[in-house]
Amino acid sequence: MAKRIAVIGSGAAGMTAASSAREKDSEAEITLFTEDEHVAYSPCAIPFVIEGRIKDFRSIVMHTPEWYRKERRIEVHVRTKVIRVDLEAKLLTLHDGTNINFDSLILAPGGTVFVPPVEGVKLPGVYPVRWLKDGEKILSALDEVQSVVVAGAGVIGLEMAIALRHRGKQVTVVEMFDQAIPRLFDEDMARLVQAHCESLGIKFIMGSPLGAIIGNGMVEGIKVAAKEVPCQMVILATGVRPNLELANHIGLEIGPLGAVRVSASMQPYRKGRLVKDLYLAGDVVSCESAILPGPTLSQLGSSAVRQGRVAGINAAGGYAQYPGVASPFVSVIGEVQVGGVGMSRGLADYYGVKVVEGKAHGMTRARYYPGGKPLTVKVLADASTHKLIGAQIVGGEEVTGRINWIGAAIVKGVTAEEFQAGFENAYCPPVSMVRDVVNEAVDDLVANL
Amino acid sequence: MAKRIAVIGSGAAGMTAASSAREKDSEAEITLFTEDEHVAYSPCAIPFVIEGRIKDFRSIVMHTPEWYRKERRIEVHVRTKVIRVDLEAKLLTLHDGTNINFDSLILAPGGTVFVPPVEGVKLPGVYPVRWLKDGEKILSALDEVQSVVVAGAGVIGLEMAIALRHRGKQVTVVEMFDQAIPRLFDEDMARLVQAHCESLGIKFIMGSPLGAIIGNGMVEGIKVAAKEVPCQMVILATGVRPNLELANHIGLEIGPLGAVRVSASMQPYRKGRLVKDLYLAGDVVSCESAILPGPTLSQLGSSAVRQGRVAGINAAGGYAQYPGVASPFVSVIGEVQVGGVGMSRGLADYYGVKVVEGKAHGMTRARYYPGGKPLTVKVLADASTHKLIGAQIVGGEEVTGRINWIGAAIVKGVTAEEFQAGFENAYCPPVSMVRDVVNEAVDDLVANL
Repeated sequence: MAKRIAVIGSGAAGMTAASSAREKDSEAEITLFTEDEHVAYSPCAIPFVIEGRIKDFRSIVMHTPEWYRKERRIEVHVRTKVIRVDLEAKLLTLHDGTNINFDSLILAPGGTVFVPPVEGVKLPGVYPVRWLKDGEKILSALDEVQSVVVAGAGVIGLEMAIALRHRGKQVTVVEMFDQAIPRLFDEDMARLVQAHCESLGIKFIMGSPLGAIIGNGMVEGIKVAAKEVPCQMVILATGVRPNLELANHIGLEIGPLGAVRVSASMQPYRKGRLVKDLYLAGDVVSCESAILPGPTLSQLGSSAVRQGRVAGINAAGGYAQYPGVASPFVSVIGEVQVGGVGMSRGLADYYGVKVVEGKAHGMTRARYYPGGKPLTVKVLADASTHKLIGAQIVGGEEVTGRINWIGAAIVKGVTAEEFQAGFENAYCPPVSMVRDVVNEAVDDLVANL
Repeated sequence: MAKRIAVIGSGAAGMTAASSAREKDSEAEITLFTEDEHVAYSPCAIPFVIEGRIKDFRSIVMHTPEWYRKERRIEVHVRTKVIRVDLEAKLLTLHDGTNINFDSLILAPGGTVFVPPVEGVKLPGVYPVRWLKDGEKILSALDEVQSVVVAGAGVIGLEMAIALRHRGKQVTVVEMFDQAIPRLFDEDMARLVQAHCESLGIKFIMGSPLGAIIGNGMVEGIKVAAKEVPCQMVILATGVRPNLELANHIGLEIGPLGAVRVSASMQPYRKGRLVKDLYLAGDVVSCESAILPGPTLSQLGSSAVRQGRVAGINAAGGYAQYPGVASPFVSVIGEVQVGGVGMSRGLADYYGVKVVEGKAHGMTRARYYPGGKPLTVKVLADASTHKLIGAQIVGGEEVTGRINWIGAAIVKGVTAEEFQAGFENAYCPPVSMVRDVVNEAVDDLVANL
């Protein structure tokens, strides 16, 4: 009899898990349930649709449920909520009472934008940025709006601030921490990004949590610190919390970072034991750091794909492992690209790691080659082992490959000295300096050891 | 007494060696001799000046001899040929008979364009591409020229072909091998590059060495296979051979690839023994492969800088090592970027390595994001160890970082399976696909194992 594989969630993790299970087992019955009405789109694209760089929301949807049915024999049920999971009976219960049997289950319910517990968050005009429909609502409300407050100066908050500014709105970003891109970026590097946003007319109120949202039946402003900022729209870019509803209901172990603890095979634990025939992937799990023993969150689309692949292969009876992560990310914020990998100083402090840093400023092309853009690279190493543990880059172009390059060194435990001696860079005047700025940042780090 | 350090050669290797020696020893007397009249420029920039992308030759010269004297206390003697080296007496003799004492010597004489031994190569109108003055001569002769033949379809030949085509010339490339970018690229990937050049109107005659250059007092055409191609200019892009004049005169050991064999400290051998107080760097040396035990050539500007640094530090009494190389390179050929690292199939054959390959075609951005450009990635692994040994990329943008990224995996001996499981990619729709094309190429490789 064909194996019955059920998948809950239609984000990058769920869709990849279903496809990977299909690749592994051409016979299995694969059924996917999602509360969303669209599948196979990247939430990371939402700010760029709002900005107008991508023409519409329809174009970011890569495939329809029909496509999955026809091309991959995956049954996709949209607008369908799973309300109960009985692991012993291997039974799902849907919101309409239907029971579904499974042999193995993949749980990829994702996360939800954290809603700060302040007055007025339920007023019309307050939007999270998570689902495609959030984006559609923001876009359709935009004509009536002059001023927007974005709560949260992380990368999504900044991308949204840029998008809305580009649409001609007055934009104020309110951030609880003293710097933009907290946790992922250091203050000196975050300042470069904030300055770029400010040069485009975006205002920042730092070190102050959103106090309240005010308005009579609709948003009219916010309170922050002792100030009031009038606005007609509030964007919540306040971070993503794992959707633990089903995990709690099943009784899965939740790790210290507030996400489900999983093995390298993406299986959860219950009462101290590995759970069979259940696999998790995506924003709902914590994973292991490639840098230090211990858990970390890797709430990235690219991580969801990698985790989904492992969950799907294993759920289909194959075997794959998800190793420790350095979680490289990149974001495009106006005219600058912002990338990071591994630990910032802030995260290193949290994990009790003492760091030595190096920094270099240069160009993305040879100095005499027209069109080159500034590039600033910061690298961090562990002060005792000299192993590279993190990097942050702000530059006008070609940040992504550089971040992946340093990420490769981090996951391989390469020391700053070894990177300096042995990590070569490709060179051609239109696309790099003869010694890349990454290499120069590492040189600076080694000089500081 | 201050240490006397002499440097021969003003390319990337020589200039970096002198500067690194200065950083290591602030007291040393550092003197550099070069036959060139300009120092501190990148020959890699020459085609882009001719193409008109860089405004003039003056702008590619980063520093003058005066700058080195003032800023780094390095005495630079241009238009000065060293004709004798007496290692026992630690004495150099210049072309004018002057004797110079040294305590340690750095030899970085570079290479010379191979001149094919055919009729007519001395005719006016035949130019190598190596020195700044070669570029100036080509540029000043260009007005009188309608048709050009470029001998050699390596990256420099193709860059020159593009440059001259961009200047409105009829361009024919003649290549002895059956494919463009021989040795460094495989035939399938080279075909993409050749097709792009052909789409711009460049003609190719493959599998045929240049037979003769014909003309009465100046170039009027070339003979290749049974054909004659009329032209008024011939560009020799026929590869670079080490300048062994001084090395042979000293009696240094020449390795099997026709370059000076050096230790990881960049010291040569003579009669089976390591030579003291002599360091080499740049196109004149062979180095060790990071992939297999054995020598390889790494005739790249970025390699010259790395080697020069090690030679300079060691010549100044410090200690640094030059580890095995994977030699990442990148070139911009019209609208495509072409990058490679490690071994091609052709090189693998030469070294007796059996390979398994993977390939993927995708985009540089999310499929729905405007402005994305095609990206083709090929990766090669050793069939017995599954270690990655090479990669080739052709794409419209962001090739450099990807090549460095794979290069990092190659020098660390990472297997295809480990790369698949553990090498993460940063993602944002404007700058990458959610699973990078590099990762997809490795997936394909693993499926082929």
